[in-house]
Amino acid sequence: MTSKKLVNTVAGCADEALAGLVACNPSLQLLHGHRVALRSDLDSLKGRVALLSGGGSGHEPAHAGFIGKGMLTGVIAGAVFTSPAVGSILAAIRAVAQAGTVGTLLIVKNYTGDRLNFGLAREQARAEGIPVEMVVIGDDSAFTVLKKAGRRGLCGTVLIHKVAGALAEAGVGLEEITNRVSAVAKAMGTLGVSLSSCSIPGSRPTFELSPDEVELGLGIHGEAGVRRIKMASANEIVTLMLDHMTDSANVSRVPVQSGSSVVLMVNNLGGLSFLELGIIADAAVRTLEGRGVKIARALVGTFMSALEMPGISLTLLLVDEPLLKLIDAETTASAWPNVAKVSVTGRKRSRAAPAEPLEAPVSPVAGGLTSKRVMLVLERVCTTLLGLEEHLNALDRASGDGDCGTTHSRAARAIQGWLKEGPPPASPARLLSKLSLLLLEKMGGSSGALYGLFLTAAAQPLKAKTDLPAWCAAMDAGLEAMQKYGKAAPGDRTMLDSLWAAGQELQAWKSPGANLFQVLTKAVQSAEAAAEATKNMEAGAGRASYISSARLDQPDPGAVAAAAVLRAVLEALQGQGV
Amino acid sequence: MTSKKLVNTVAGCADEALAGLVACNPSLQLLHGHRVALRSDLDSLKGRVALLSGGGSGHEPAHAGFIGKGMLTGVIAGAVFTSPAVGSILAAIRAVAQAGTVGTLLIVKNYTGDRLNFGLAREQARAEGIPVEMVVIGDDSAFTVLKKAGRRGLCGTVLIHKVAGALAEAGVGLEEITNRVSAVAKAMGTLGVSLSSCSIPGSRPTFELSPDEVELGLGIHGEAGVRRIKMASANEIVTLMLDHMTDSANVSRVPVQSGSSVVLMVNNLGGLSFLELGIIADAAVRTLEGRGVKIARALVGTFMSALEMPGISLTLLLVDEPLLKLIDAETTASAWPNVAKVSVTGRKRSRAAPAEPLEAPVSPVAGGLTSKRVMLVLERVCTTLLGLEEHLNALDRASGDGDCGTTHSRAARAIQGWLKEGPPPASPARLLSKLSLLLLEKMGGSSGALYGLFLTAAAQPLKAKTDLPAWCAAMDAGLEAMQKYGKAAPGDRTMLDSLWAAGQELQAWKSPGANLFQVLTKAVQSAEAAAEATKNMEAGAGRASYISSARLDQPDPGAVAAAAVLRAVLEALQGQGV
Repeated sequence: MTSKKLVNTVAGCADEALAGLVACNPSLQLLHGHRVALRSDLDSLKGRVALLSGGGSGHEPAHAGFIGKGMLTGVIAGAVFTSPAVGSILAAIRAVAQAGTVGTLLIVKNYTGDRLNFGLAREQARAEGIPVEMVVIGDDSAFTVLKKAGRRGLCGTVLIHKVAGALAEAGVGLEEITNRVSAVAKAMGTLGVSLSSCSIPGSRPTFELSPDEVELGLGIHGEAGVRRIKMASANEIVTLMLDHMTDSANVSRVPVQSGSSVVLMVNNLGGLSFLELGIIADAAVRTLEGRGVKIARALVGTFMSALEMPGISLTLLLVDEPLLKLIDAETTASAWPNVAKVSVTGRKRSRAAPAEPLEAPVSPVAGGLTSKRVMLVLERVCTTLLGLEEHLNALDRASGDGDCGTTHSRAARAIQGWLKEGPPPASPARLLSKLSLLLLEKMGGSSGALYGLFLTAAAQPLKAKTDLPAWCAAMDAGLEAMQKYGKAAPGDRTMLDSLWAAGQELQAWKSPGANLFQVLTKAVQSAEAAAEATKNMEAGAGRASYISSARLDQPDPGAVAAAAVLRAVLEALQGQGV
Repeated sequence: MTSKKLVNTVAGCADEALAGLVACNPSLQLLHGHRVALRSDLDSLKGRVALLSGGGSGHEPAHAGFIGKGMLTGVIAGAVFTSPAVGSILAAIRAVAQAGTVGTLLIVKNYTGDRLNFGLAREQARAEGIPVEMVVIGDDSAFTVLKKAGRRGLCGTVLIHKVAGALAEAGVGLEEITNRVSAVAKAMGTLGVSLSSCSIPGSRPTFELSPDEVELGLGIHGEAGVRRIKMASANEIVTLMLDHMTDSANVSRVPVQSGSSVVLMVNNLGGLSFLELGIIADAAVRTLEGRGVKIARALVGTFMSALEMPGISLTLLLVDEPLLKLIDAETTASAWPNVAKVSVTGRKRSRAAPAEPLEAPVSPVAGGLTSKRVMLVLERVCTTLLGLEEHLNALDRASGDGDCGTTHSRAARAIQGWLKEGPPPASPARLLSKLSLLLLEKMGGSSGALYGLFLTAAAQPLKAKTDLPAWCAAMDAGLEAMQKYGKAAPGDRTMLDSLWAAGQELQAWKSPGANLFQVLTKAVQSAEAAAEATKNMEAGAGRASYISSARLDQPDPGAVAAAAVLRAVLEALQGQGV
């Protein structure tokens, strides 16, 4: 079974991917007849050194994403994981030479095919009289013993593009750039790790890993790594990687030690989630700083991928201030990230939580309302909800996940617990605000958030006044907030139906001389009728909206609960003879 | 089986991912005790509007990657795919208010949990006297009929961050920003497609697709889409997506038509290769331009992911010049790409291939060398190689892939074909250059590149002179290039062994009065001895270097072939009595 890919044809992949990047980046142009992308402002480079890189496709955004002012002049792309054609490399060299650049540096990853093809193009270009130098980058720290072929070129190559680009932009000559980047290239190391392989379009994955294995020290072409390790935590894997990369017994190590200053790259090899990339970055920063290493800059992202390989590589580059200036220099390359020109190590990474606001001024207490009375009302509400638990759960089983009663009982028990801690505030605004926070925290789910919203909004009109019109305004504010953020409307078969019906009746409180109990009694009756009526409604919001209406022949449990709460309030107040 | 992830604990994922991003970005700080990241320069925002966004984790780099000057002030992150806590949203609002900002806009993706929790925090903050507005973004174009819950918030939200950020940076007030971005949010649409699902750490994939299915119109939480389609080409899928998004029968369409000017976002949902992303971008640009749509800007990358989902989303935003200025405004947000401030549509996307250089001046012809004689030598070389095909293949089967004879025969036939086209150049420099190009193109593989390199380099000293010291210099230059780019040294069991041995003998040509045939004869004998001696060598380069030396008891076929070529040259020259 070949891999599933969003492509047109296997043969056209490399061409189309490059064409897509060029199409979306007006600063680039293709070179007609070649798989070559160049800066479109080549003519502005007269008298400067040109920088060309490239290699097989499948490493995007490398290398075309790093073309721009302050980075590469152009790239030559091969087929997927295949060295580019000599003729195209030569064409790119000729194009930048004919635009008036004074010489070209080829930045080549250390692979035999790339070395040979770029080398050959270089020799041909020199035979034509074009000054061309070549640096071969080998930053792989995987192999602990010397390999004849040398270290492979990996993600660190992107840092060389950056350093060379800054130098070329500053007008430095070909020989000096070549010497500088050759020295920089020796001061870095990269190591990769992956959870599984990748597959070339039209092919099967290049290796197989069992679910508890991780491949360490792999290349960027799906080739297997230096060893397989058991799946471990992100911290353990990062520690193992940094140990391996800096081990004095590893001939390809990067000599990072306590006191070293480094640029850290955390590179997504393609298919890892950015969530995991952040976790790896966190572990890498902690581990390095724990070893006394100073992280001058940290780059996190996808720089040099291996198609969709779900893994990462870590790159460490030893830096001093002059080198850091080159890393920090401006570039227009689309895939180079915005990096703050500030040291990562030594910064305060958190700020103190904001001060809690002072308690809102105590609102006037409504006629006769006391902590004692509030407690009696709340106790009645809690008893009512606890008594309804099974009934509400049964109603909810027909339309939701069957936990409506449980959720409301959780709220009731939270209120009971809170009442045991001390007398509740008699101030209505403060009471509703406290209940809001309590339900939000303890009731949970959408119901908790909706009651929290209702109570928070309802508390506001009660700050200034607590007469009957103010209570009506509180109900209106609560209903408005619930509709606004919850996106339910009356008739949607939710708890809003009961509350909204009650709210309609409570409008009577706005009239002078309105009677508390007469109006409230009508409101409760109306809420109960509305709750009952939900059994004929189609669900328009909430979880029940995914159920066909034909299967809904019971009232909505949220609406039933809200009506019951209102009746409990009424009866408790009546029992107290408010 | 739960998914394989590079994490420490399932519970710690969201905290550590955010901590990692903040650690690597010195412009950000965490808010102590909350999963909140804020600009570390909050105090510079006195008198400006603060912009807060956020939502569940798992969408990285959204949202923390979009914090910075010119974009967000801060973000609040929930657990993976879970709305953030109200208390943390409120803490973020308080923190930016206490830093002296004049009001806060909450930019919220349209999901019930986010609406409720951000809404509740907003109400609480307003109760504390903090001016807070909220825009709910729904850019999903998947659902063709009206959904009560409205359109979901997807990748287009990032464009709102950008627009709001540019306005806030310009000092625009809270109400105007709210109105402007609310209008902009109505002029966009997003549609996703994926090859398979993603999985929350500690869980199984959220849906399953067969190998020939693609999910269309999915959200960013692993939820299934609006329909499944058969696997098709990238072009077909992009066409289908754009049709769906702009269909006049789709209530959630974005009204893009011929003549419209748009910003295009090509967003990696997480696990797709960037190669495929480029192919999709290419198809999207071609298809839109084919419909007369003007693409003002195109953004390609990972902006709003769904963990490691291997899919993409396309976002279209209708723009005019004032809006484009806001998209183009500077930002320091790390995940916002470098975008050229130039229209994508209407630009020349390729430049003409460079001019071929004039033919190098004809070098002097060595005493008695003519096209006729060159032809006789080459024919002898070809015949020799063709005769050795089976022998070379047999030698190669012991150490490589058994095609060494085939490769050399392919070269021989290419030379024979070329000779039929006309007489070869008598000028040695031009002859070697032509042969170099021929072998490079027709011989293929590393051998073709190495012979190409050898001949290109060898041609150079023969441009000025063609006496015996010049031929010795040619051999030296060829050997040097071969070693330099091929990384093989004498003794590595490669064709270099024969050539290098011959080269040592040819040094005698540098002495005045040296004899052509005496020296060449010794060189050929030395090459043959060196080829034979490779059977005792361990392979140090090339494919055979992966084979244990104990299994290598035959000479290296490349070395044998090179020696045979030299003997053929000698015998042909002797036969002609040069």
